[in-house]
Amino acid sequence: MSPASSEFHVYDTTLRDGAQQEGLTLTVADKLAIARHLDDLGVGYIEGGWPGASPKDTEFFRLAQTELELRHATLAAFGSTRRVGKRAADDELVAALRDSMAPVVTLVAKSHALQVEKALRTTPEEGLAMLRDTVTHLREEGRRVFVDAEHFFDGYRYDPRYALEFVRVAAESGAEVVALCDTNGGLLPDELADTVAAVLEASSAKLGIHCHNDAGCAVANTLAAVAAGATHVQGTLNGYGERTGNADLVTIVANLELKKRMSLLEGTGLAEATRVAHAVSEITNIPPYARQPYVGSSAFTHKAGLHASAIKVDPDLYQHADPSLVGNDMRLLVSEMAGRASVELKGKELGYDLSGERMVVTRLTDRVKEMESRGYTFEAADASFELLLLEEVEGVRRSWFDIESWHVSVDSRSHEATVAEATVKVHAAGKRNVAIGEGNGPVNALDAGLRQALAAAYPVIETFELVDYKVRVVDVGNGTGTGALTRVLLTTANQSGEAWTTVGVGVNVIGASWEALVDGYSFGLLRAGVQPALLP
Amino acid sequence: MSPASSEFHVYDTTLRDGAQQEGLTLTVADKLAIARHLDDLGVGYIEGGWPGASPKDTEFFRLAQTELELRHATLAAFGSTRRVGKRAADDELVAALRDSMAPVVTLVAKSHALQVEKALRTTPEEGLAMLRDTVTHLREEGRRVFVDAEHFFDGYRYDPRYALEFVRVAAESGAEVVALCDTNGGLLPDELADTVAAVLEASSAKLGIHCHNDAGCAVANTLAAVAAGATHVQGTLNGYGERTGNADLVTIVANLELKKRMSLLEGTGLAEATRVAHAVSEITNIPPYARQPYVGSSAFTHKAGLHASAIKVDPDLYQHADPSLVGNDMRLLVSEMAGRASVELKGKELGYDLSGERMVVTRLTDRVKEMESRGYTFEAADASFELLLLEEVEGVRRSWFDIESWHVSVDSRSHEATVAEATVKVHAAGKRNVAIGEGNGPVNALDAGLRQALAAAYPVIETFELVDYKVRVVDVGNGTGTGALTRVLLTTANQSGEAWTTVGVGVNVIGASWEALVDGYSFGLLRAGVQPALLP
Repeated sequence: MSPASSEFHVYDTTLRDGAQQEGLTLTVADKLAIARHLDDLGVGYIEGGWPGASPKDTEFFRLAQTELELRHATLAAFGSTRRVGKRAADDELVAALRDSMAPVVTLVAKSHALQVEKALRTTPEEGLAMLRDTVTHLREEGRRVFVDAEHFFDGYRYDPRYALEFVRVAAESGAEVVALCDTNGGLLPDELADTVAAVLEASSAKLGIHCHNDAGCAVANTLAAVAAGATHVQGTLNGYGERTGNADLVTIVANLELKKRMSLLEGTGLAEATRVAHAVSEITNIPPYARQPYVGSSAFTHKAGLHASAIKVDPDLYQHADPSLVGNDMRLLVSEMAGRASVELKGKELGYDLSGERMVVTRLTDRVKEMESRGYTFEAADASFELLLLEEVEGVRRSWFDIESWHVSVDSRSHEATVAEATVKVHAAGKRNVAIGEGNGPVNALDAGLRQALAAAYPVIETFELVDYKVRVVDVGNGTGTGALTRVLLTTANQSGEAWTTVGVGVNVIGASWEALVDGYSFGLLRAGVQPALLP
Repeated sequence: MSPASSEFHVYDTTLRDGAQQEGLTLTVADKLAIARHLDDLGVGYIEGGWPGASPKDTEFFRLAQTELELRHATLAAFGSTRRVGKRAADDELVAALRDSMAPVVTLVAKSHALQVEKALRTTPEEGLAMLRDTVTHLREEGRRVFVDAEHFFDGYRYDPRYALEFVRVAAESGAEVVALCDTNGGLLPDELADTVAAVLEASSAKLGIHCHNDAGCAVANTLAAVAAGATHVQGTLNGYGERTGNADLVTIVANLELKKRMSLLEGTGLAEATRVAHAVSEITNIPPYARQPYVGSSAFTHKAGLHASAIKVDPDLYQHADPSLVGNDMRLLVSEMAGRASVELKGKELGYDLSGERMVVTRLTDRVKEMESRGYTFEAADASFELLLLEEVEGVRRSWFDIESWHVSVDSRSHEATVAEATVKVHAAGKRNVAIGEGNGPVNALDAGLRQALAAAYPVIETFELVDYKVRVVDVGNGTGTGALTRVLLTTANQSGEAWTTVGVGVNVIGASWEALVDGYSFGLLRAGVQPALLP
């Protein structure tokens, strides 16, 4: 009953349909980073965007050719069929798809007869011709072609004959997959499954499924389509997408792999799921949803009491799957945060074998828990975690410099540009260094000041560069508005392109930034093999 | 096919199973308030808690007798069957259920043979006797009795004979409903539906369904059980509950009423859904989930320019239900992908009819696009958008004050707490005002300074409060790290709880925050109907 993994497509559209989510805006660098995470997860296809329609997406596909070395996934470019009355070969949007150099092109086209008339203002026949011509042209250009049948289910309800003809035309023109889209997300599994079965009976096309969660059934709808014979599933990380979002790809795959015993992902697969889901929410800066199935921080969390004792008897009583299979942990809410296992695993990931170090693991776990309860996060801030780990292993924190004080001020006068100036006083290599930093903002000025104050003792610091800076207000129940805690994630890179992320937390965005800056420089010096040059 | 509303139970367990959610704690007053909202929504049954096991819940049922006048709903008390080897009439926990005076008692009991042995440490026969005795006793005491069959589906898989015997014993003893519980939430709809159908065939009991969302299928599982013949659905508001939560009751009911044409709620019903869902998240202090089906703030929100023009043609293309039926609204986001159509629709949403104003729409669209290319976003910042719209409509920007200059400084000395101080100089109502603001952070200090400088001219400003503050670095290709552009989204609220969001962008997090602050105060004054008091 389970198709071989090579025949079944796991197709991610986070970078295209997921990016339609309210509040979500991705830079080209964000997109490249997410694509790498998706490749780690082992999906088969990554839809990167719509080259030609968005300059950012055109740039993504251009950079992908040199900067994205995918081990498992194949890149797909999304776009529409040729315009009414044009030749596919002469259509500049079709040309942009071809020129993206993505091996797969996914064409969206309307399979709803009424909509072809209302929205495209053309005849149903021309709608089919647009589909046929564009698929044929791209096939001739050597591209694999998938087709997204927009509004398919509503279209099938309205005019099943036209909807089926659409699938036939797509397949006969050379489309490898026809993905049936529940575009407005309103279908329930029963009707959806009946329709997929009817289409499969009437055509020889390989069918895919693309669902939205407007009725709260995106995952179940996708599973129902697979049970009915679809062999290509589309979804997004964290269920990102317009309105209520797309089907959550990780939940779908976890259900199919763990409960239907299908083998779908390449490489490490599901064991990466929790890490990838959380890393991507750091990139999108959309807080992770604690109750998200499988990967949510609450997904395997139990409140003490009735369940806690039963769990000691048999963990499966209140947990439907082994959390380690998706890289998550069981948590008992006696304490706030995740356990020894993940701290140990994380250490291993960074190259520290802590398996024999019970005391170190205990101390480190306690500190992580305590800091997380104050708003810190180490999901993304590997470098801050490594400095903490090292401190617990060595019993003392490595320190390359000692801070006496810092001061920063920002000035704005009428309509002149705002200017910032910082004073930084540090002790390093036995000397007191005082430096002034200027910048267009306070963090910039502090960075310039700290860099200058340390450069004499550690010249390598001149090669470090701040490459990313994220701020989020975290609610740990202490206040509202600008009085709440602020968390800063700061990414620093060296000349060889290695990058590391540090974290700072405080009631003050500047104080939090300073903490992350200090960790960032310290870790850079550690990585560069520089010995602490503090005098005793 | 749809059962009459009197035969079908909508059973809410927010106050009992929902309260198991991580981070959720309800006072007795909270519980009473939520019960009133549930009654407004028109559910049939409200499970109030476990009297006897929790003093808070005992108190809730005591107060409910005098303070809760329910128009539609019936109150249910939750509790367990008598203890091993006791008589039901002598069991103090059973007595607490009886004494709660709730007309319905919902008894939870284990229907999984292995668990009766492992967790209760008694024989399967005694397990059934505990069920029989307790139901019989409470029936004799004049209570209606429902039974929650815990771990039913795993139990049925393990020993279907025992699970079916459990259902028969419950029904024969006088239980009105046997609710089958997928306690660990791991079932998928296909297996669940098969089991419900098999149980219905083997017994004459009225079946209920209680699902959790661990596999992301709680809603679909509930619908599958109803299709198989269950006539009692359990769920919670906002899908609150342990781990990934319980089935979201509003989504279930909306699907059944709007898509299966069943009539389930009393009174105003679904039209209250959005209001109730949001009011309850105020009580629980858990932020509403924007992507929640039907009631989420993003549930009927559209971003893409592509979609916006299609929506003008036919709103149903991208929305699966009429949002007004669940008390929600369609929203259009003004985004980088947007064009004239969405700007015009957005204006309409804010109460400005721009349909005849071609020039204004053109200028406004151009400005939005230009600002978005510099890192602004108006998706969330409705207030900044409205100020911009007003400026284009009136030809001049309304200005309540003029800023001469501001200055802020942040100090950190060794390990002392960081302090911030701001100086703000403004002209308003013909006077120059200079104020100093202090705070734990620079934005806080600037806010305090600006507020103080304006309070004399506009006393209403004292009632404004900053309630949310978000910072994000946006990449518009101008730089990296802390030299990149920073975007601040700031939400201000007034005393009546109205909130509005403004945006600021700059190379400097402080400058961007200042811009958003100024827009926030300006919009608050506009909303309060305050005339600009600038002297010419």
